[in-house]
Amino acid sequence: MQAPILQKKLCNFGGTLEFYSHPSTSTHSEMKFSVFRPAEARTQRLPVLYWLSGLTCTEENVMQKSGAQAYAAAKGILLVAPDTSPRGLGLPGEKESWDFGEGAGFYVNATRDPWKKNYQMYDYVVKELPALVGEFFPAETHRQSIFGHSMGGHGALVAALRNPSLYRSVSAFAPISSPMQVPWGQKAFNGYLGSDQSTWEQYDASRLIGAAKTKMPILIDQGSDDNFLKEQLRPELFAAACEKAAYPLSYRLQKGYDHSYYFIASFMKDHFDHHWSHLK
Amino acid sequence: MQAPILQKKLCNFGGTLEFYSHPSTSTHSEMKFSVFRPAEARTQRLPVLYWLSGLTCTEENVMQKSGAQAYAAAKGILLVAPDTSPRGLGLPGEKESWDFGEGAGFYVNATRDPWKKNYQMYDYVVKELPALVGEFFPAETHRQSIFGHSMGGHGALVAALRNPSLYRSVSAFAPISSPMQVPWGQKAFNGYLGSDQSTWEQYDASRLIGAAKTKMPILIDQGSDDNFLKEQLRPELFAAACEKAAYPLSYRLQKGYDHSYYFIASFMKDHFDHHWSHLK
Repeated sequence: MQAPILQKKLCNFGGTLEFYSHPSTSTHSEMKFSVFRPAEARTQRLPVLYWLSGLTCTEENVMQKSGAQAYAAAKGILLVAPDTSPRGLGLPGEKESWDFGEGAGFYVNATRDPWKKNYQMYDYVVKELPALVGEFFPAETHRQSIFGHSMGGHGALVAALRNPSLYRSVSAFAPISSPMQVPWGQKAFNGYLGSDQSTWEQYDASRLIGAAKTKMPILIDQGSDDNFLKEQLRPELFAAACEKAAYPLSYRLQKGYDHSYYFIASFMKDHFDHHWSHLK
Repeated sequence: MQAPILQKKLCNFGGTLEFYSHPSTSTHSEMKFSVFRPAEARTQRLPVLYWLSGLTCTEENVMQKSGAQAYAAAKGILLVAPDTSPRGLGLPGEKESWDFGEGAGFYVNATRDPWKKNYQMYDYVVKELPALVGEFFPAETHRQSIFGHSMGGHGALVAALRNPSLYRSVSAFAPISSPMQVPWGQKAFNGYLGSDQSTWEQYDASRLIGAAKTKMPILIDQGSDDNFLKEQLRPELFAAACEKAAYPLSYRLQKGYDHSYYFIASFMKDHFDHHWSHLK
């Protein structure tokens, strides 16, 4: 496994914020990610929390706008945030829309041309990146959790539900938790996976929840004034699936909040508390 | 006094983040500012903390990147951040450079054409905006403090040193604390005030400190790896002036930190603690 290349390193909250690129074997392309390394990481291995971003985001947004590093520093957690897709490959259509292609990998392993060679974001996030973090960073790989926002909330739920032995806990802000039922998910799955909906189910949290054997408690925060609530997010479908499966869900509809990082920042501390209760 | 016009309102940390515009009588132009209103403001008046931003920034940067609202919410402080200049006036040269004109008002009252009619940012920040906040927001105007970054750190120091009865406390991140001695300050003062350096002194914290009658303790954080440290910021000149005047300065050179909001966010809590000890 090739070491990632440090592109930028900044002091932040007593630790360091680091931006990397590396040649990914999953996506056959350069991938980028950011790492917040708390001060404690100088002398010990730390648990890892993965953040998956939403549509159009990069590896920087969460570090810039969410305030997460304050809590990661206070608790001694390595925070890792990958970019949301491969970039700059020159694939036809990769830049045509903001909700498909670049910045919109949807955390699936694509099976259709021209995407299947590179858009292997599920493998990248679940397998390759954690292996790389375990090898090149002071990470306790048996103590890892995952969370994310919107498309990244979808990615986090899917990663955790399919791999309960890999993650201690999962949470999400405004996740696309029933992607098969909403336009964003349908566009992405049709494009990356094709029209056979049976191949979609492995990436739909509301479908996966019924088959989950390990019941890792889920925390979801959702803004009531989120523009995407009724058409794209539809948390009520996920909540109903959890109820049917008797799966423990803490779903909080936050009155008046929108879909932005201002919403995320407002509840970030609660998500760290949630993860810490499982990681500590 | 005309009520400001609400342009955008978001839920944030249990309170609201609000963006306003209003016709300013100081700048004879539309001015913008942001306000974080903690939940407590629904039932009581709160102390006010003014944030002045640096070159190129708007009223949004601090709210987006500094994490300040978390601390303002926890302590119950109204946080107010004005834009850094009038904008869109069509004055010759207003958009030519990033360190003069738009986004670079330098918190002075310009005396030269074409700036003098509109670039009255000192009066705007010290007089008009606090009066407006006192009239239209739940502010305890006798409990106010001020802080800022870079050009805004300069602005905060000058505002506080010249008006010790208006502010309880002052602090700054990487301030331009000796503007008469550095290129940024010289360019701004020459442009806005003309070549007579005796008119510059009223806007130079290192000059003002000797004449200060009230010794309001100052907190300054400065990154040691700030690209602007040696040419533009020169905190050693301000520290020497404070020492000569026996003025209480807590100057912290933060090893490895740069000039960015990642630096600011890292020490934002300490600045709120500093201000709260005077505002509470």
